[in-house]
Amino acid sequence: MTPFDELMAFQRETEALAAIAGRLGWDQETVMPRGAAAQRGEEMAAIEGVLHARRSDPRLGDWLAAAEAPDAAGAAQLREIARAHARARKVPARLAQRLAQVTSQAQGTWAEARAAEDFAAFRPVLEEVVALKREEAGALAEGTGRDAYDALLDDYEPGLTGAEIARMFDAMRPRLTALRAAIFERAEPAALSGDFDTGRQMDLAREMATTFGYDWGRGRLDKAVHPFCEGSGADVRITTRTDPADPFNCLYSVIHEAGHAVYEQMIAPEYALTALGQGASMGVHESQSRLFENQLGRSRAFCGWLRGRMAATFPGAALPDEDAFHAAVNRVHRGHIRTESDEVQYNLHIMLRFDLERALMLGTLDVADLESAWNERFAADFGYGVDRPSNGCLQDVHWSVGLFGYFPTYALGNVYAGCLHAALRRDLPDLDAALAQGDLSPARDWLRERLQRHGRLFEPRDLITRATGDALSEEPLLSYLEAKFGALYGL
Amino acid sequence: MTPFDELMAFQRETEALAAIAGRLGWDQETVMPRGAAAQRGEEMAAIEGVLHARRSDPRLGDWLAAAEAPDAAGAAQLREIARAHARARKVPARLAQRLAQVTSQAQGTWAEARAAEDFAAFRPVLEEVVALKREEAGALAEGTGRDAYDALLDDYEPGLTGAEIARMFDAMRPRLTALRAAIFERAEPAALSGDFDTGRQMDLAREMATTFGYDWGRGRLDKAVHPFCEGSGADVRITTRTDPADPFNCLYSVIHEAGHAVYEQMIAPEYALTALGQGASMGVHESQSRLFENQLGRSRAFCGWLRGRMAATFPGAALPDEDAFHAAVNRVHRGHIRTESDEVQYNLHIMLRFDLERALMLGTLDVADLESAWNERFAADFGYGVDRPSNGCLQDVHWSVGLFGYFPTYALGNVYAGCLHAALRRDLPDLDAALAQGDLSPARDWLRERLQRHGRLFEPRDLITRATGDALSEEPLLSYLEAKFGALYGL
Repeated sequence: MTPFDELMAFQRETEALAAIAGRLGWDQETVMPRGAAAQRGEEMAAIEGVLHARRSDPRLGDWLAAAEAPDAAGAAQLREIARAHARARKVPARLAQRLAQVTSQAQGTWAEARAAEDFAAFRPVLEEVVALKREEAGALAEGTGRDAYDALLDDYEPGLTGAEIARMFDAMRPRLTALRAAIFERAEPAALSGDFDTGRQMDLAREMATTFGYDWGRGRLDKAVHPFCEGSGADVRITTRTDPADPFNCLYSVIHEAGHAVYEQMIAPEYALTALGQGASMGVHESQSRLFENQLGRSRAFCGWLRGRMAATFPGAALPDEDAFHAAVNRVHRGHIRTESDEVQYNLHIMLRFDLERALMLGTLDVADLESAWNERFAADFGYGVDRPSNGCLQDVHWSVGLFGYFPTYALGNVYAGCLHAALRRDLPDLDAALAQGDLSPARDWLRERLQRHGRLFEPRDLITRATGDALSEEPLLSYLEAKFGALYGL
Repeated sequence: MTPFDELMAFQRETEALAAIAGRLGWDQETVMPRGAAAQRGEEMAAIEGVLHARRSDPRLGDWLAAAEAPDAAGAAQLREIARAHARARKVPARLAQRLAQVTSQAQGTWAEARAAEDFAAFRPVLEEVVALKREEAGALAEGTGRDAYDALLDDYEPGLTGAEIARMFDAMRPRLTALRAAIFERAEPAALSGDFDTGRQMDLAREMATTFGYDWGRGRLDKAVHPFCEGSGADVRITTRTDPADPFNCLYSVIHEAGHAVYEQMIAPEYALTALGQGASMGVHESQSRLFENQLGRSRAFCGWLRGRMAATFPGAALPDEDAFHAAVNRVHRGHIRTESDEVQYNLHIMLRFDLERALMLGTLDVADLESAWNERFAADFGYGVDRPSNGCLQDVHWSVGLFGYFPTYALGNVYAGCLHAALRRDLPDLDAALAQGDLSPARDWLRERLQRHGRLFEPRDLITRATGDALSEEPLLSYLEAKFGALYGL
């Protein structure tokens, strides 16, 4: 075996073990008995310890030095393995294991604190998570000239900096707040009302996942507190939640998570269980779920078709006509929950979290002040207060599991989705005719061919510009939002 | 840290990783998407590779040589770790990984072949499993003076030999066949008839698990092709299956699996994630599930109570009176399926499998001849033929996952259960009064105190004789069966 082949064989086992760790995370969020949390913490720490030892294994350095890539994909494999190796060598094994254990327990504590509306119950374990993440960020940043937050960003969107994100957000904020202000001067369209059986919601959610191309032979749908997608290759699972009063919560969560899942399922099979066998970055991942959920799933054409499927699924429901249904789906409304927010205000939720988590990591905000900082900022950005912690700083699972630097990739995903959508419309002039019949295949084929099949072959922003043929910019997203909501609200 | 403490810390991580591998097995049998089988095979191989490397780690030899046990439990920890270490060093890592991969795939192939009634579709992969197990058995037996089959038995019932089992079976066979012959001269009692909603079956099954002491905070119940119990410590899961025509299939499977699960849940918490934190052996494990299912769950006293719960759960069902209900539960009937067999004939099913698998391992039977060997032997032992493979040699999952040497521990479990039941009746004269009210707590408390809490502290047969105060013998089981079925059939 050549050094390259030896490295690939070693990496394949590492990827299989990483898939197992991911599967444990799915188990914990969907089916694990409550009383197993502490034991699961030890299990997660053990498998993370194994992964850390493999990723920092000195043989990797030797193989990387000696390996000759047979082609461009091979070169990309070496690039990704080298990146993970460099990261692993910077983080002490004890810290990595401690983080895995604490975040596993913190996730359970978060769920209980959220149910009890009690930030104080979550605070001690979050303080521990923040302290450990600061320690990790410091180790990662050392010798790079980058700050602690940027070091963590690298895990989710390689090469991106907090300063770049801040510039982008500064460019977007005035146009979004202006659009929102104009919208709030108009009458609010009616929301859907009624009692929608949650079992039928799940049936329709399954149909939507199928419509958007989700392969059930390689996945499954379950309920969880917070919708998510987990896995890659031949086992990519999605979750959702149901609310009898709001079927869109369930349906659009599933369309969103199916966006993540279909991306993973469409990656070239030869990349499975290799360093290229996952989405290119969190931002690119989010662009796929956002495109599915918003630009396609909330389009006028698709909403017309969806209304028909809703009418068939909920025979007794009083559904408005197609235009009013489209308006209800795209209603810009006052609310506290990020995941239930609309396309116009969503990025404001992200900007709030971005500033707070960056301050937590840079040491300019303490966990003790997080709840009040959140509530003050929310009131300032959204114009009304937070009524309870589950509507405020306890609403998201991310920080409990140590995901700092992850939130901004949601906004970056929106920007990528804006670029991809513009190119998709340019290349597929008949897209709306297909969407009006619930036919997602032209869009899916375009995305698979241009972007999804490549996995991690290209760097994230390179991948987006290759797919679209245009330079990366927030302009397409903003133009799309202004056009869409301008028409909806008669601005 | 002392060598003993270092060894315990290392072992704790190994146990956590072993728990993860077990959890993957649960996932595969209950929730895994069909298309994930091949990838899961690689995942299982990777984690088995990690476990094998840890169990054969040369540092273990050093620690074992230097460690001083602080107490009897510590000495038992060293004994169990040394046993696993010796085993792991005998089996090459490549063979262990290959076995994990092949059996993971074979399990899926078995399920498909069973559904298609096609032994030929299963044969090639079973041949591969058998060849790998022979290779493993040969490696394990080397230098021990034991044969290949005995070497495999050691994994499930330390110290037991095929010759001892054959002697025990020889002693049991004539009395069991005589009992069966006498029973079949009498009229067969009526089976339950009706259509029993499977959802309500699951509700009642959950109630039974609760009644028998299953802790839902540390477990869950799902459906699977073949009922099983998986896990230890804080996460012990059980499965069952449902048949609308036969609620006893579901109910007694759950009582049986709850017997395994409660055993694991009752082990002293300080043994969790250590080498003592599991049942003492497969035979001892089976004694707990058999006691729950048969000696307690199929007793006249408990059946009277269960009939009331059935009547409340299935209001429309035409249930016979308590005596006839008890007779229906204990009906000795013609049938092909081991797991649906009665207490009298069950051991005959085991004897058949024991002889065939022993011959497969000793090389005196080929997989090509397995189906005809099974069918001939079945006709000879049971008096009628096998009608289709799913009623014959495709009915059990065990061989597909490489479990050779496991089957006889079911019969040994029956013998242990016979001994424990005699001691239980001696110590708890009011047991029937409690069972008649669905109160299992006196029996559970006795079992926990005398046996379950000890985990692997004692060697299996030592544990049973300590619990009962009597020498081990098949006599109590045979006397119990002759008395019970003698009364039921008026012999």
